[in-house]
Amino acid sequence: MSDLNKKISVRKISNSPSIRTEDYVAIEEPLEIQICSPKKDLSAAKSLSITMRTPGNDHELAVGFLCSESIISSHKDIDSIASIGETQNKDGLQNIVRVTLNQSVDFDPSDLERHFYTTSSCGVCGKTSIEAIRAKGIKVNLSKFSIKKEKIIDLPKNLKKQQESFLKTGGLHAAGIFNSDGEILLAREDVGRHNAVDKVIGAMAINNDLPGKNRGLIVSGRTSFELMQKTIVAGIPIIVAISAPSSLAISLAEEYDITLIGFLRGENFNIYSGSQRVSC
Amino acid sequence: MSDLNKKISVRKISNSPSIRTEDYVAIEEPLEIQICSPKKDLSAAKSLSITMRTPGNDHELAVGFLCSESIISSHKDIDSIASIGETQNKDGLQNIVRVTLNQSVDFDPSDLERHFYTTSSCGVCGKTSIEAIRAKGIKVNLSKFSIKKEKIIDLPKNLKKQQESFLKTGGLHAAGIFNSDGEILLAREDVGRHNAVDKVIGAMAINNDLPGKNRGLIVSGRTSFELMQKTIVAGIPIIVAISAPSSLAISLAEEYDITLIGFLRGENFNIYSGSQRVSC
Repeated sequence: MSDLNKKISVRKISNSPSIRTEDYVAIEEPLEIQICSPKKDLSAAKSLSITMRTPGNDHELAVGFLCSESIISSHKDIDSIASIGETQNKDGLQNIVRVTLNQSVDFDPSDLERHFYTTSSCGVCGKTSIEAIRAKGIKVNLSKFSIKKEKIIDLPKNLKKQQESFLKTGGLHAAGIFNSDGEILLAREDVGRHNAVDKVIGAMAINNDLPGKNRGLIVSGRTSFELMQKTIVAGIPIIVAISAPSSLAISLAEEYDITLIGFLRGENFNIYSGSQRVSC
Repeated sequence: MSDLNKKISVRKISNSPSIRTEDYVAIEEPLEIQICSPKKDLSAAKSLSITMRTPGNDHELAVGFLCSESIISSHKDIDSIASIGETQNKDGLQNIVRVTLNQSVDFDPSDLERHFYTTSSCGVCGKTSIEAIRAKGIKVNLSKFSIKKEKIIDLPKNLKKQQESFLKTGGLHAAGIFNSDGEILLAREDVGRHNAVDKVIGAMAINNDLPGKNRGLIVSGRTSFELMQKTIVAGIPIIVAISAPSSLAISLAEEYDITLIGFLRGENFNIYSGSQRVSC
């Protein structure tokens, strides 16, 4: 395992008999960026941002973030920078970067709060993100939902029929809700893939169709921690993605017994978790 | 113009002489989700989340977000839901959704703050997001950086050489910094495309290479408001993307005279803004 990827076990489905093999997935872990400003007597570190990132070059990530947010204008504005917090694995990965600004930097944290915006939740970075979901008391998905391999293969084609704007712009993510016959019951598009998923889950809520025990979710992109969290909370037992899952998406899927499918292209796809719901 | 996409003017580069034509791009606008809870005497609305979204189905987006965050468990927990705020266009688009919870819902806003995390900044949703950037006092990019069409066409191939983990996982975004000869000077990978960009900008800061007047940025995915903001603040005059830009990315590029290239595939690409920096 490097910082960027790790080996996992996967069931590969194709025209030939399915095989279980090993594959690599991108690592996703939370990173908290903390800031200390001696000028403002901020000896206690202030949490500035939590982002789901691939470990590696964490100091660069923190410095780049501070530049992008116009908190610093160059590296010279930084007194020191350190990785801290609980060690996450045997390679010594830590999920907090603490940046101490120089005396000369004029940083007003109250200024900042007006400019930052929040995205969907994760946990406290010192712990694993999965614990944050556990803390919500959500149970393992026991749904007996089942779908045939052929119906899964048809999903992207069925979803595309409802993606009016993607065809025009090439710039929108889509999310769709399907039943065990592979019919797309509703579909929504958005520049943000988490928004497209929130829209379909919101539509299900409004239609009184939650928890989605007999529903599946298909997304046009990748599967991240955030998308998996939304799937779990909505009680949906299966998520199908055209692209790759992250390491954290797979861990969550395994823990909550969600069927996680990725790389659905042509007649091939990978099952990362919960293969009992797919009949071949 | 629909809610989801709008027509823009674009210069299309290919083996034939370049042409100026019209094309559609996905609309990106901020949405603020506010919450009122009568039970807690929260008559004043609390801002819960600001997300960059494609307008349309905004109420579903808000309801789905509240479900995903376990704030509500069904639509019945909502007393009323309304779009409010300044009208953004002639179609009456508003960028704030206010959700009033039922008396029966036990919502503690202080509970929430621990669970939410921040992403990079946008403005106050009542105004346009571009004003938030303007408020930072950043000037139009005057860089005379120039690059030949052929060098742009070679960028994806050059970037891929440095994307070790993408080749293994298919699940990582990449960002690279190039010079006017099209050489990739540094590249970083991440599950989050904004993180990959923060990493290269952070590396530039550490190398004392900011503002990046003689540098270009290439990204493996799409160009959003957030990526454009990072490019502008870093003083980089050109951003090249493999996929589509959003409407807001184009508006920002025009305002700050950034060269914005998208859909770079094979020998073709689109120039959305700042074509003076590309020599054909």
